[in-house]
Amino acid sequence: MAKVSGVTVNWKPFLLGPVFAAQGLADSPFNIYPIKGANMWRDMARICERENIPLQRPGIFPANSVLAAKLAMVGGVDGWIAGFSRAVYTANFAHNQDISKSETLIEILTSMGLNPQEVFERANGPEGAGLRQQTEDAIKNGVFGAPSFQVGAELFWGNDRLEHAIDWALSHR
Amino acid sequence: MAKVSGVTVNWKPFLLGPVFAAQGLADSPFNIYPIKGANMWRDMARICERENIPLQRPGIFPANSVLAAKLAMVGGVDGWIAGFSRAVYTANFAHNQDISKSETLIEILTSMGLNPQEVFERANGPEGAGLRQQTEDAIKNGVFGAPSFQVGAELFWGNDRLEHAIDWALSHR
Repeated sequence: MAKVSGVTVNWKPFLLGPVFAAQGLADSPFNIYPIKGANMWRDMARICERENIPLQRPGIFPANSVLAAKLAMVGGVDGWIAGFSRAVYTANFAHNQDISKSETLIEILTSMGLNPQEVFERANGPEGAGLRQQTEDAIKNGVFGAPSFQVGAELFWGNDRLEHAIDWALSHR
Repeated sequence: MAKVSGVTVNWKPFLLGPVFAAQGLADSPFNIYPIKGANMWRDMARICERENIPLQRPGIFPANSVLAAKLAMVGGVDGWIAGFSRAVYTANFAHNQDISKSETLIEILTSMGLNPQEVFERANGPEGAGLRQQTEDAIKNGVFGAPSFQVGAELFWGNDRLEHAIDWALSHR
């Protein structure tokens, strides 16, 4: 959608755990409020059906995404972060794969034609370490969930606000 | 939207307080999670701007809506509940009026050509008392917030799921 609209997206990985913790939440709100959580899963299933997106509810939720997010930091530098993020979400939410495991992520990097060993080394170095600062920046900018879209000073939350974020970007250049 | 689509809406007032309490929440989530709450207000302002709907953030939030909901129960019997609900929401969210006050609600009923004294008497009788059962039914049906749209066994939550609810009703007659 952004590409079609001519809007540039600057992907910024962050960890949800600290974002939730900053609000006093020790787990995903889906788990803390199970009545609402059940409806969120059903809502997601209906949306995926409407949009023809495969969905399989993960056995583990939320998955530990520290390693995936560190690898994504490297992808941000090199320009493959969008495809990588989509592949990780597909593994987690369509194929019920354990995205906390190195093997899962190695497979994704390999399928993208990347060198897993080199990317892992950078993810475990300063490039991956930037994730901590980026998470703190997200909290400072008022982020409370994912996905979030920041357009200047405006923060949009949720897949269902993507159109609003793009409209805002187009009308406030 | 429902009228244009040929979908019948059966309005069912309920109280949010007991719905939140059933989830262990002693206040509106907007107030319990102020970081998220601030973004919800901003989101609402942006949506109202997009759709040309007046919005003025209420001085008291959430307002005590017991009396308004009891009056709405009478409107459900008589068929003026939709217009009444719109008028109460406009008073609360566009004109920052205190909708917990009889005077505000008398004014609304009068402007609708109704007899406030008669409606108040019925609201304080068995018709208004049905609100309690309806709130319990809502909780039993998995309602966790408002607005909620129930279509058969499917529960849709939020103004931003109105289209989905109508689509579901149309494709599952």
